[in-house]
Amino acid sequence: MTDDTSAESPHREMAERILGGDIRSAARLMRLVDDEASAATAVLDELFAHTGDAYIIGITGNPGSGKSTLVDRMIEALRAQDLTVGCVAIDPTSPFSGGAILGDRVRMQRHALDEGVFIRSVATRGNLGGLSRSTPAFLQILDAMGYDILVVETVGVGQAEVDIVRLADTSVVLTVPGLGDDIQAHKAGLLEIADLFVINKADRDGAPRLRRELRSMLDIAAQGRDEDDWRPPVLETVATTGEGVERLLDEVRAHRDWLVEHELLRLNDARRVEHYVRMRAAGRIERLLDAGLDSERWDEAREALSARSFGPDHGVDILMELVREALS
Amino acid sequence: MTDDTSAESPHREMAERILGGDIRSAARLMRLVDDEASAATAVLDELFAHTGDAYIIGITGNPGSGKSTLVDRMIEALRAQDLTVGCVAIDPTSPFSGGAILGDRVRMQRHALDEGVFIRSVATRGNLGGLSRSTPAFLQILDAMGYDILVVETVGVGQAEVDIVRLADTSVVLTVPGLGDDIQAHKAGLLEIADLFVINKADRDGAPRLRRELRSMLDIAAQGRDEDDWRPPVLETVATTGEGVERLLDEVRAHRDWLVEHELLRLNDARRVEHYVRMRAAGRIERLLDAGLDSERWDEAREALSARSFGPDHGVDILMELVREALS
Repeated sequence: MTDDTSAESPHREMAERILGGDIRSAARLMRLVDDEASAATAVLDELFAHTGDAYIIGITGNPGSGKSTLVDRMIEALRAQDLTVGCVAIDPTSPFSGGAILGDRVRMQRHALDEGVFIRSVATRGNLGGLSRSTPAFLQILDAMGYDILVVETVGVGQAEVDIVRLADTSVVLTVPGLGDDIQAHKAGLLEIADLFVINKADRDGAPRLRRELRSMLDIAAQGRDEDDWRPPVLETVATTGEGVERLLDEVRAHRDWLVEHELLRLNDARRVEHYVRMRAAGRIERLLDAGLDSERWDEAREALSARSFGPDHGVDILMELVREALS
Repeated sequence: MTDDTSAESPHREMAERILGGDIRSAARLMRLVDDEASAATAVLDELFAHTGDAYIIGITGNPGSGKSTLVDRMIEALRAQDLTVGCVAIDPTSPFSGGAILGDRVRMQRHALDEGVFIRSVATRGNLGGLSRSTPAFLQILDAMGYDILVVETVGVGQAEVDIVRLADTSVVLTVPGLGDDIQAHKAGLLEIADLFVINKADRDGAPRLRRELRSMLDIAAQGRDEDDWRPPVLETVATTGEGVERLLDEVRAHRDWLVEHELLRLNDARRVEHYVRMRAAGRIERLLDAGLDSERWDEAREALSARSFGPDHGVDILMELVREALS
């Protein structure tokens, strides 16, 4: 540490501890991120130079697909290969349903004695915006700490979540037989984000039919693509027994090799960093919008809008002008 | 129509038709809104002067709570009182599940011959951002058309949805026995947005227990509040038979009277208009951010970030500067 950075030393000190592998400091920084403390940003910026090395696997599948169990099995298998694993489990439950909070605690305990595993759940408290803010930061922290593989686990609700899985190096889409297969297969967005399809609970009756449907869907999607393009395989697992998990990891590796061969790994990292910077800029602008709505000039505009003296278009102009002034 | 507005006449003409009650033109404008066509905004601005009169009821409850059936019963009861009803049903399904699309079509047909009812579903295609854009616009259209009561129906996933229900005049939170009652009751956010709690499927075993839990929760929340504050009642319905629906509408009216008495109705309208204007301004800025990321100057920044030559904080500064320049 040099003199000219002494003003930032608390941030730097926390960053140093995290880079040294201090789990407690990492957990504390994650809490600061959750609380949107400005100190968190400063520490993250200190960590940034040490990021970009982890391989990120995104897994999405709806509740009941056995996602958590499968991720647990994957963690076990990766650990057996001496790879360290950081896991971010997103729990975007509605304000109504209980979600996996308790389940996550049980999982954390299960791996609690293994220093090669770090599992953090993101409880979004019904706020999907919250997960888009926290998750990229959590991944950066785990990346900077040197975990080899990062797994982001999420149910596929909402754009913010889909974005997070889309930004992974390998995106795994989990399905199970018997969930209205034909409908689920045709939902938009899935085809584009999936690098691997996994049919979990593949010992169930509907598995062969689901596999046929997914394959014919992929055949259609493959038309007009280059021979050289990645073609998502359809795999089968039974997470409760571990069946198919090794094969799944083999395919993740095959996809990784393909990314390396096509020089796409670095591009993925660049896209993630860009997404993160855009998100932070958008956050700053949100605050400027709120400040604008708090201004005296807006009080007048609100009155006029409420009285229908002028329309929303003019209201937008006034608000944009307030943002522009704040930026100047 | 005067000469100086002739350039806008297609927008004005569409607006005139909608104000005249033309269902087809309204449906067409809603499609334009869904497609984010800029023409939609111009027509909405023409309609704006005619908005602010409808009473808006928001209903939220998770899938399986019988929400759609209850709303149907409410529509029937409101129609029996000669009130016209516009309904916006939000369907924020994950890319995986089929959702209520088919169900909504059935409902539309059911009321198809009744000119006093207009039901529109918002299919969000996994994009929660989409609903926050479309729904306020749909409500404005129905408001301008002169429907007395507007009902917004949504499952409680995500901030955008919670916002929409929060911005209603009366927010109804629907629960059912047997969904992990203790957990669902304690989820944050619900207490603050609910003006009325409804236990649907109240003929089920767990109803008395759920009622006790909700009431004691409300007792705790009521501590420290003014006597004069609205205290959310806990109602019971069996939507399939229509039991309790009249009572529910009585309580909506009681809440409306309370709002009028406290001069809050106009404030609600002002909050909705402000929310809409803020959303449009945010949309404009989103486009400026994307344009910034498309610029040559950002190509350099992306490279530098990817190489870790500088950190995200500096990246954010560059992006903000690009937005500022675009605003000037």
